[in-house]
Amino acid sequence: MTDHAIAADELDADDMYLLLRDAVMPRPIAWVSTIDAEGRTNLAPYSFFNVVSPNPPVLGFSVGPRNERRGDGAFELKDTLLNIKANGEFVVNIVPERFMEQMVRTSDPLPHGASEFAHTALAEVASTLVQPPRVGGATVAFECTTHDILHIGKSAWVMGRVRMIHVEPAAYIGTKGANKHRIDVLKEVELRPVGRLGRANYVRLREIETYLRKDGG
Amino acid sequence: MTDHAIAADELDADDMYLLLRDAVMPRPIAWVSTIDAEGRTNLAPYSFFNVVSPNPPVLGFSVGPRNERRGDGAFELKDTLLNIKANGEFVVNIVPERFMEQMVRTSDPLPHGASEFAHTALAEVASTLVQPPRVGGATVAFECTTHDILHIGKSAWVMGRVRMIHVEPAAYIGTKGANKHRIDVLKEVELRPVGRLGRANYVRLREIETYLRKDGG
Repeated sequence: MTDHAIAADELDADDMYLLLRDAVMPRPIAWVSTIDAEGRTNLAPYSFFNVVSPNPPVLGFSVGPRNERRGDGAFELKDTLLNIKANGEFVVNIVPERFMEQMVRTSDPLPHGASEFAHTALAEVASTLVQPPRVGGATVAFECTTHDILHIGKSAWVMGRVRMIHVEPAAYIGTKGANKHRIDVLKEVELRPVGRLGRANYVRLREIETYLRKDGG
Repeated sequence: MTDHAIAADELDADDMYLLLRDAVMPRPIAWVSTIDAEGRTNLAPYSFFNVVSPNPPVLGFSVGPRNERRGDGAFELKDTLLNIKANGEFVVNIVPERFMEQMVRTSDPLPHGASEFAHTALAEVASTLVQPPRVGGATVAFECTTHDILHIGKSAWVMGRVRMIHVEPAAYIGTKGANKHRIDVLKEVELRPVGRLGRANYVRLREIETYLRKDGG
């Protein structure tokens, strides 16, 4: 049986979105907290997310339009983007297993101005350098300022420069060899980051294998 | 016990790389095939990778410098980038579990011009629209042309516009409701995409949970 070959032009926007969502996995989740001019907080998950550059440290994630039929955390996407455009600050929280359900519920449609922190009983913890709070108990939290925003079609690729990092004590190792501030987010099961798969699926990190690479990477 | 707060400025480039690699997970892997002017093929894994935009379909991944002490697939990074800069074409292959070991071995340091396809006994399959071959048996393969390349520090954030998609028959579903060309890459265990974690760790997708979201996302 030969493989199925599909020209990109054959697919409409919805078909293409589903195909990418269901093919590129497992995805890390940026649980992004922002704040508006009235001080109202927002929290929403984005899984088209990764490191863009390690040095300088830049993280990137994609925000779709609010009224897209399907999208990663579609309902509040626009508020995340509006808040970032207004003040240039956000926090990328890494979601621990113990918050898996709350994270999914931060995608719930809420009345404008209602905070997902209150909706999910998550603790807002003051950040050190930026205005938006971080999620209390998140495995790791990256305080960011906007590096750049690329607009591609109806989406925005938001890139943030990491300014400050918070690590849960149980995931912190400290100095190891020549390197300081090493972490191990797999050590405690409840702190392990949640992964996003296709459809409505999420994954817990369990069947882990180690391969030492010859390039030292 | 309070969390550990680390200012980004406290970390040198190596410390920061390790912290990001060990915090942002699980990561999808772009197994990128390219070709040089002499027709020599190259294949290397990059896990700072994700969807940048669903419409138009754009994928992005980060390529570090060749001589960086640590990097995702560091040894052949520069060749991947040189090839893409020379001809603007590449294929992003999604790595199935059955190729996990071969994928890791495509990071091995090889003599210049030696192909990772031959080194790992992987089949080069001719692409439809671009010159670089794809990996025979990859779960999904995206033929791409360069959308743009951002240079940040010593890294390049390579963005590719998806032109053609190949799907393994066992992962292909076809029409479902109003959507055509739907896929299910979790159906067959051997085809499930491999995820990258921190350190030298990789994950098999097993403990999967479904949460239906109220926003339809």
